[in-house]
Amino acid sequence: MQPISVDAAPLARLRARLARLGAPLCLGIDPHPDALPSGLPADVGGIETFARGIVEAASEHAVAVKINVAFFEAFGASGIAALERVRADLPGDLFVILDAKRGDIGPTAERYAAALFGHLEADAVTLSPYLGEDAVEPFLAFPDRVVYVLARTSNPSAATVQDLTVDGELLYERVARWVAERWPGGRVGLVVGATRPEDLRRLRDIAPSPAFLVPGVGAQGGELAAAVACCHGTDAPGVVNVSRAIAGASRGDDWHEAAAAAAAALRASMQEVGATLGG
Amino acid sequence: MQPISVDAAPLARLRARLARLGAPLCLGIDPHPDALPSGLPADVGGIETFARGIVEAASEHAVAVKINVAFFEAFGASGIAALERVRADLPGDLFVILDAKRGDIGPTAERYAAALFGHLEADAVTLSPYLGEDAVEPFLAFPDRVVYVLARTSNPSAATVQDLTVDGELLYERVARWVAERWPGGRVGLVVGATRPEDLRRLRDIAPSPAFLVPGVGAQGGELAAAVACCHGTDAPGVVNVSRAIAGASRGDDWHEAAAAAAAALRASMQEVGATLGG
Repeated sequence: MQPISVDAAPLARLRARLARLGAPLCLGIDPHPDALPSGLPADVGGIETFARGIVEAASEHAVAVKINVAFFEAFGASGIAALERVRADLPGDLFVILDAKRGDIGPTAERYAAALFGHLEADAVTLSPYLGEDAVEPFLAFPDRVVYVLARTSNPSAATVQDLTVDGELLYERVARWVAERWPGGRVGLVVGATRPEDLRRLRDIAPSPAFLVPGVGAQGGELAAAVACCHGTDAPGVVNVSRAIAGASRGDDWHEAAAAAAAALRASMQEVGATLGG
Repeated sequence: MQPISVDAAPLARLRARLARLGAPLCLGIDPHPDALPSGLPADVGGIETFARGIVEAASEHAVAVKINVAFFEAFGASGIAALERVRADLPGDLFVILDAKRGDIGPTAERYAAALFGHLEADAVTLSPYLGEDAVEPFLAFPDRVVYVLARTSNPSAATVQDLTVDGELLYERVARWVAERWPGGRVGLVVGATRPEDLRRLRDIAPSPAFLVPGVGAQGGELAAAVACCHGTDAPGVVNVSRAIAGASRGDDWHEAAAAAAAALRASMQEVGATLGG
């Protein structure tokens, strides 16, 4: 077992924690006020309590946590204050991803980087590719931090733009190839929400080196195995994000225990897949 | 002169103010702490003072104000609190655009809409097209509000993705055509930062009905004329955003006066262009 240093650079921390846990589970935190367990108020206090509770219950099984900033932004300054508190109290050896999907011109991207990497001290963020390199480079000016550029998302209308055909390949494939060629070395990964195992494998062939952040995976089946498989062998470790299957495991009084049990089961499933890959 | 009602729906207010001012000037607010006038501190207090000062000095010449939220987000909760105060004190008959360039899957887009249209009460926001309809529809669930979808941005690396060729046309042209066909009627416009007049005119031909939000225009010359020209004849009025040429007109003690003079001159130039169009 490798030692874990809270002060290590983000990717070193991620690698150390992955070596210890044996599963690339990323814990997704997307607290909607209308989907909180019974007993929690549908306000900013409720989402803060819920976010903290899920981290306490389940993060021991996760290498990373991905917080979706929209769910805090919805409450304005008081929501961001809650996010600041939640982030400050996260376990120091977790890899902290702020899911913000920002994308703007250079000077504005620099201010978003100041917000997410500077003020909130994220280890990694998600970014949109639509504005090109200018939207990414200001984030890379923060040493050692990681960005994940959106390639393919898993929402129903993702195909409208992402599946357009560009010179014989799909737009999201072109984006993945661009990212892989433009920023080798592990600091720029890809968000790949494709739920079909064959899509994940094809994109892995097109972009063999960038780490994948795979959201939208259910708890069981071939999708989980394919997602875990595509986390191996890249410049940096990939992670598989699970939100609802953990945070929504129960809306009753047992939500802490249900989240802990769901995370433990997911970690075990991922360990099994990893054992077949490593063997 | 038409009466102006603060309570009117956003587009009715924009049309009334445009009829009164005769120029589609949008006042851009992008306060960077390192680019404030001498005498203002490089902190959140400085950017709030500067934003308020520019609005006080120049907004009488503008039909709309576009606030770039990144410059407030960079300061965390205290920055968002400043944005809330600045927004609450904006003149009631201004059309208020929050430039956020958000783009996420449906449930998350719903939370971003809650932040920008609900909490901050924007009249309009900017959005990224990369995730398709899902990233747009939750914003349209707020009655009467307006969204501008990014088509072509004016940053140096915009071409990387936006100028890819899709079935014989450029990606940003395809995005513009998609938006025009998918959401007729004036509530969904396009961000078109193309600085070359011929690009603006070509895109106007491809997407004749959506309003353009044109950023990145300088104070003089053919670019201004082309930008103003493409604001006419659409389902909703287009606007031409000017940030630096007004807010950065002086960094000395006379920054209020310089901003007011720059805005007045821009309004006059736009009125001249408009007169040739209307004649």
